[in-house]
Amino acid sequence: MRRLAIVVQYDGSSFHGWQRQTTPDGSPLRTVQGEIDAALVRVMRQPVTTRGASRTDAGVHAVGQVAAFNAETTIPVERVSLALTSALPSDVRVVAAADVPATFDPIRDAVAKGYRYRIRHGSPPTTWPDLERRGWSATVWPELDAAAMGEAAAMLVGTHDFTSFAHTHHGRESAVRTILRCGVVEEQPSQLRIEVVGTGFLYNMVRIIAGTLVEVGRGRRRPQEIPEMLAARDRRSTGPTMPPEGLCLMWIEYPPSLGAPIAPPTAGGPRRS
Amino acid sequence: MRRLAIVVQYDGSSFHGWQRQTTPDGSPLRTVQGEIDAALVRVMRQPVTTRGASRTDAGVHAVGQVAAFNAETTIPVERVSLALTSALPSDVRVVAAADVPATFDPIRDAVAKGYRYRIRHGSPPTTWPDLERRGWSATVWPELDAAAMGEAAAMLVGTHDFTSFAHTHHGRESAVRTILRCGVVEEQPSQLRIEVVGTGFLYNMVRIIAGTLVEVGRGRRRPQEIPEMLAARDRRSTGPTMPPEGLCLMWIEYPPSLGAPIAPPTAGGPRRS
Repeated sequence: MRRLAIVVQYDGSSFHGWQRQTTPDGSPLRTVQGEIDAALVRVMRQPVTTRGASRTDAGVHAVGQVAAFNAETTIPVERVSLALTSALPSDVRVVAAADVPATFDPIRDAVAKGYRYRIRHGSPPTTWPDLERRGWSATVWPELDAAAMGEAAAMLVGTHDFTSFAHTHHGRESAVRTILRCGVVEEQPSQLRIEVVGTGFLYNMVRIIAGTLVEVGRGRRRPQEIPEMLAARDRRSTGPTMPPEGLCLMWIEYPPSLGAPIAPPTAGGPRRS
Repeated sequence: MRRLAIVVQYDGSSFHGWQRQTTPDGSPLRTVQGEIDAALVRVMRQPVTTRGASRTDAGVHAVGQVAAFNAETTIPVERVSLALTSALPSDVRVVAAADVPATFDPIRDAVAKGYRYRIRHGSPPTTWPDLERRGWSATVWPELDAAAMGEAAAMLVGTHDFTSFAHTHHGRESAVRTILRCGVVEEQPSQLRIEVVGTGFLYNMVRIIAGTLVEVGRGRRRPQEIPEMLAARDRRSTGPTMPPEGLCLMWIEYPPSLGAPIAPPTAGGPRRS
């Protein structure tokens, strides 16, 4: 039995998120994991169930999701991506694969994750996203103060209790997490991205960080209020949860000793700089 | 009664083309014209039927389609785009509008049209398009010789009988058309676009030009064969019709005296250079 890890990219627009799920009456919903598992069955000719590193929500995109699975197969590792992608619909693809130790756990072994939240801002028609990429950003009116947002973002860096920045029912014992980097990049006029890198995230955390930074960008909150929001440990102290379409899971990092796969830059994969 | 002309952009992926149509049993198919006309009814509160300059096929995109309609309305012309786009789904938008003479005919008055045909080429995974824009290019294996394609493209420029480059049932009396510009641009490694500018086009003409240039790019045909293909006046002398997703109608030009609308460059509109 081999254990393989793969890097998966998807346009989340038409998926009910990563994780396999069914409707109350038992019919399967279209999920990324469901498509990947079905492709694995076709390619590996055996039942295979993947474990994903991040259970992205419905509508959330990924260019660097990581998943692992066990399979009895002699397929050369360098052919795995192509074989799986050929068996997948066009909105999901496998861009890298590697043999990993039998104990590899994509969730537990992750040492850092990078997310991007992209926002178009201003007044229409300025806010209309590029037609070709329209499903990959959220829209906010009116124009945002990116400098103030950047100031607020920097105050989130560090190890804090992120209760205020998580869904009320995040379901974890501790809400203490470490943000390694948080910044705002003006990509082009009327378009910015929030970049967040951390060792782990709570449910909805990046979308609530984005919603809080948007409040700062609108001038409704000041960057200096971030420490008191953190101290409040109360979801009501922060901004709204931004919609899923602006969010993209960029990359997940593992200790080099595990040999986890890294997306080739030619496939539009993770940019770690 | 005013006559207005609008510039329309759409992602053709989910449309049965521009022109309103119904299934054999009479139920309406989703078309761009159908969506625009429905939005006009909502905004103008009267029945309105547009006339489009180009009946793009199912799956074909446009960033510079032009349509015209008559309406009894006092809406300021500068508010038309925003009002219509607000009433439209996210895959179609109106980016410019202008009052035009009562006699303005978007088909007859057009003096030139520009099309782009975008191709990813090489071997997978090189050919995998950027995930965010994956619906906006066609894929060809293996790598194409862009220089040879450019040489062949140049030989199409001029006034010729384009019978060989049109659908057999193009339905026009004369197949003589004038190509003003035809070239191949290498956009990035493994990605090129064919740009075609002409005074008028026959059914499937750009997609057959693209298919023929691809044959040249594969080395199956030589650029020097273009004149004999034209002379043959036989559809069987040229390459295959390329799929619709690579094609995009970029712009349509009218005599300046008619005051037809021009898409603002901020909306990703026509580039005439």
